[in-house]
Amino acid sequence: MKKIKKLGVFTSGGDAPGMNACIRAVVRTAIYEGLEVCGVYHGYQGMIDNTFIPMNSRSVSSIINLGGTILKSARSDDFRTKEGREIAYKNIREQGIDALVGIGGDGTFRGGQLISQEMGIPIICVPGTIDNDLFGSDYTIGYDTANNTVIEAIDKIRDTAMSHNRLFFVEVMGRDSGCIALHAGIAGGAEAILLPEKKTAIDELIETLEIAAKNNKTSTIVIVAEGENNGGAYNVAKRVKEKFDYYDTKVSILGHLQRGGSPSSFDRVLATRLGYAAVQELLKGNTQATVGMRGQKAVATPLSEALNSNTFKLDKELVKIAKVMAI
Amino acid sequence: MKKIKKLGVFTSGGDAPGMNACIRAVVRTAIYEGLEVCGVYHGYQGMIDNTFIPMNSRSVSSIINLGGTILKSARSDDFRTKEGREIAYKNIREQGIDALVGIGGDGTFRGGQLISQEMGIPIICVPGTIDNDLFGSDYTIGYDTANNTVIEAIDKIRDTAMSHNRLFFVEVMGRDSGCIALHAGIAGGAEAILLPEKKTAIDELIETLEIAAKNNKTSTIVIVAEGENNGGAYNVAKRVKEKFDYYDTKVSILGHLQRGGSPSSFDRVLATRLGYAAVQELLKGNTQATVGMRGQKAVATPLSEALNSNTFKLDKELVKIAKVMAI
Amino acid sequence: MKKIKKLGVFTSGGDAPGMNACIRAVVRTAIYEGLEVCGVYHGYQGMIDNTFIPMNSRSVSSIINLGGTILKSARSDDFRTKEGREIAYKNIREQGIDALVGIGGDGTFRGGQLISQEMGIPIICVPGTIDNDLFGSDYTIGYDTANNTVIEAIDKIRDTAMSHNRLFFVEVMGRDSGCIALHAGIAGGAEAILLPEKKTAIDELIETLEIAAKNNKTSTIVIVAEGENNGGAYNVAKRVKEKFDYYDTKVSILGHLQRGGSPSSFDRVLATRLGYAAVQELLKGNTQATVGMRGQKAVATPLSEALNSNTFKLDKELVKIAKVMAI
Amino acid sequence: MKKIKKLGVFTSGGDAPGMNACIRAVVRTAIYEGLEVCGVYHGYQGMIDNTFIPMNSRSVSSIINLGGTILKSARSDDFRTKEGREIAYKNIREQGIDALVGIGGDGTFRGGQLISQEMGIPIICVPGTIDNDLFGSDYTIGYDTANNTVIEAIDKIRDTAMSHNRLFFVEVMGRDSGCIALHAGIAGGAEAILLPEKKTAIDELIETLEIAAKNNKTSTIVIVAEGENNGGAYNVAKRVKEKFDYYDTKVSILGHLQRGGSPSSFDRVLATRLGYAAVQELLKGNTQATVGMRGQKAVATPLSEALNSNTFKLDKELVKIAKVMAI
Repeated sequence: MKKIKKLGVFTSGGDAPGMNACIRAVVRTAIYEGLEVCGVYHGYQGMIDNTFIPMNSRSVSSIINLGGTILKSARSDDFRTKEGREIAYKNIREQGIDALVGIGGDGTFRGGQLISQEMGIPIICVPGTIDNDLFGSDYTIGYDTANNTVIEAIDKIRDTAMSHNRLFFVEVMGRDSGCIALHAGIAGGAEAILLPEKKTAIDELIETLEIAAKNNKTSTIVIVAEGENNGGAYNVAKRVKEKFDYYDTKVSILGHLQRGGSPSSFDRVLATRLGYAAVQELLKGNTQATVGMRGQKAVATPLSEALNSNTFKLDKELVKIAKVMAI
Repeated sequence: MKKIKKLGVFTSGGDAPGMNACIRAVVRTAIYEGLEVCGVYHGYQGMIDNTFIPMNSRSVSSIINLGGTILKSARSDDFRTKEGREIAYKNIREQGIDALVGIGGDGTFRGGQLISQEMGIPIICVPGTIDNDLFGSDYTIGYDTANNTVIEAIDKIRDTAMSHNRLFFVEVMGRDSGCIALHAGIAGGAEAILLPEKKTAIDELIETLEIAAKNNKTSTIVIVAEGENNGGAYNVAKRVKEKFDYYDTKVSILGHLQRGGSPSSFDRVLATRLGYAAVQELLKGNTQATVGMRGQKAVATPLSEALNSNTFKLDKELVKIAKVMAI
Repeated sequence: MKKIKKLGVFTSGGDAPGMNACIRAVVRTAIYEGLEVCGVYHGYQGMIDNTFIPMNSRSVSSIINLGGTILKSARSDDFRTKEGREIAYKNIREQGIDALVGIGGDGTFRGGQLISQEMGIPIICVPGTIDNDLFGSDYTIGYDTANNTVIEAIDKIRDTAMSHNRLFFVEVMGRDSGCIALHAGIAGGAEAILLPEKKTAIDELIETLEIAAKNNKTSTIVIVAEGENNGGAYNVAKRVKEKFDYYDTKVSILGHLQRGGSPSSFDRVLATRLGYAAVQELLKGNTQATVGMRGQKAVATPLSEALNSNTFKLDKELVKIAKVMAI
Repeated sequence: MKKIKKLGVFTSGGDAPGMNACIRAVVRTAIYEGLEVCGVYHGYQGMIDNTFIPMNSRSVSSIINLGGTILKSARSDDFRTKEGREIAYKNIREQGIDALVGIGGDGTFRGGQLISQEMGIPIICVPGTIDNDLFGSDYTIGYDTANNTVIEAIDKIRDTAMSHNRLFFVEVMGRDSGCIALHAGIAGGAEAILLPEKKTAIDELIETLEIAAKNNKTSTIVIVAEGENNGGAYNVAKRVKEKFDYYDTKVSILGHLQRGGSPSSFDRVLATRLGYAAVQELLKGNTQATVGMRGQKAVATPLSEALNSNTFKLDKELVKIAKVMAI
């Protein structure tokens, strides 16, 4: 095992609040441990485009509270080609980088596995995505902040719902994962939650709404994950309206604002711990792994295991609780 | 002029943050001045449905920071009929109410004028709407809070925009009034703002976006008032995309969350001043008027003047400034 | 084992954000399971004062987002006396309450143990305190929100610190527990953190600050837990100033605002899960236990074990990480 | 009158949220009008230290939402000396700067007047301070944001106050000006407000608190401006406690967090308008003036008039309203 001297760090895929806190932790831990550090702009694409930048402790000053990522992110088609990757590897070698930390989602994990296998360079990946859909960590960086963003929106909507006895459909992120919809739905006190993992028939939803109306609910809010089976909040609202027009219905599509914002305390501490752990794992000789929190402990999981496991399934007890709470 | 002994207060039309602060101010000022106070639930409809409730100083405790309205609001078709209004007047008389304060938009103003003319009861209306589209006050209650809500959303979107070089379309409230779009657009640093008061051709918008791209703007955000001429953010995004696909485009529809939230300090002080002023105007013998702030002073304007004046036109200098700031 | 028919729920001790979400979960789960529910105002004191109130599903509508506790809280000297408790037990029996859920800190746990032992009534306690100093749950209800409140304050202070090269001392809650100080200190990017669990000499602190100054830190923020050994932020600031006046020093004492605020998504989901779990434990025949989250699972721990274990010690790795991050 | 070619912009004195939005507006308006722009770091001190930096439209990208000031601020003793100023003037001339915009409080105004008189260079000052204590503008930049910051703190405190029947003293900024205390006190629903402009005897305060207690107020919050006559919140609390211990009393000292935070929509629009107006005034040939909003209009006032007028006195009607609202 070669001693690591110079570490490269990058973010990739969809950005998530807390990525900057994680970059900061990686940079400062590496410097504390005597390594040189180099940032890569625009993820895998930046390796090809040669957008490397030397970083020191001050490069990451006052970024812990910023949303987005100072190293920017991008998806890279070039990196999918053998030719593209060859250029990337040449650039990495020329920079003298002998280990990598990549922050992002499953695409980042796959790319990291590929680099390490093809180049023989050690890499640790950190789970950064608002979707919480990765195996290997109870929580991914950005998920807690996104949940807070959604419930702030729901709280505001409830103010006006209470004043008018209206029915609101709020579309939240989650193409394949209903984690945000379920958690924020429970936290927001939603009457119904439509998830990608579980088909909901419109008639079933209407039945729920009729019961809520009978129970004198002054506000009725339905959370719709973008990937659920009825085509999103607009379509759900339209189809409900056709059969059940007791309420005046309104739609909000939160969209990408869920990816932004200053990270929550939880996400900043999580990002800091995982950034620290990523560097420590590299120094211990680990590679092709992801770091995550399991309960109160930072643990490493091989990328191959993380990528091949059934990712994070919905917590069935929570689905039950959501139903009980809506009475 | 008959001495007022018992005051009725109600909210009507679309709710707005700060309405509760205004109710509180009306109630406490009236009690301070020796009057009895009675709240009416659901605005004009509640007068017909006889949903009156006696209020004292404690009835409005700890509501200054709440969005929505504790007296709830509703639109009333019954009140548009002679028969409906007769019932309302009978109920008001039976309650011993001899003056009214109504908080709401132009519909509230019209209803108030009608009551006063038909019943001979004095009424003062307070401008409460997020749209800022009423004559007689520099600012309406709720407008400042709505602007803050929109810029928080824009700030979050910019985090992710900066990470990805994306183009975002954010739809904000404003069917006829571009006040929120213009102010929040300037405050959010938007590259372009589409207003109901001013036609924007898609080609003109694309030109602006092309210039922004050439100027190396890392984030491009377009604010779309719901009432602008191209059919809302989805349609604008689609049509831009067809001709200019340099950016990855994303859409957020904020919807009714703009009506909610805890009122800003500005709105709470405004609501408190105007609620206080409304009662003082009644005590001075004024009626069929609206109270508003003009600069630092609370002033009264006859409802007839407020309803017949050209409402609040867009500030042309601000439209110019929005353009200058987008360079 | 007697079948439970009527459940009493109360909050006790210092209030914490999320207590309302937990009350709501207890009430709705109990009703869902066919029980009657009764709330007790003012905790143990209310049992003596006979301030019981029947609750149904609507009693807890729209409280999930509210700070504080609708059942109010109080410390009770009367409950410490045999006579006081006898009155409480008589009142509980007269209400027909045959099981209890208490939400609060270690005082609540002790009181609950006593009631159950003396009265023979089953009780489950839920950990609700911003201090995170209870055994049996990774997180206590309110802790996450308090951390977010503190980092919002730190973020604001940093804005002005960056503009002026100033040194700020921020006093946060924690008489015996440094959890908030440590977590919020890491999340806020503090240069130094003074904890109750770990003596810090002023000279040692000054050395840290001198290094920060040499490293060209543009902002220097020191977090001071109220229970640390130098007598709080004012005293620390004064003593630092005497020996090291490079910076202009400023002090903030956050105080009780850390106990308030709308609960975070994390705290609402935690409170909901634990409230649900508390009722389920009672229905399973468990008593004299506390429910908590261990990783992703809700688990029960006997009150005797929770009260006799060394409570939640500071995570040593986090203390190390805080130091590394301050370079 | 010489045509202006190159504009210098700086911030000075205590920083305030919105200063960055104003810098951005000055820079972009100047560039739009064909001028070159140069920023000065650290205000008047930076003119002496020669810390000038050329700025273009991108230099001020994505700063509109940031608290603090990217140009940093400082108080300068050197600038008070003839020798210091001579160096500053030489540096300004060498930079080719032929007009200045300074953003800050009355110290900034005085310095600007001096520069213009001694150097013959035109200057316009923009009122930037959270204290709202300048003549020439209804509102100063940062004041609205500071009010929002204070009411968020008060709202959180009220949550816990309501749960416990406690008495809270919250110290807010305002050495000579009670504007924040009065406005935020009204907006926060405070029971009493202690102002620098108006002596309050402790006995008088206790009387108010006794009345509140008799009126069954569930929460009692007293706002204490730092400059009031009893020595700040700690001393007031102590002295009240000695004579009136009905409540459990708690103290918060908000401190410098009131200067930070992302500016509100109101402050961003205000800062943008005034930054724009400052450049327009210079182009029209105006000098030694401050720009401000009077109602809906941006107007210029000579610095001599602004500095010699009685600054912004407390609005007597608001003082009365604060009292009425506390019943």
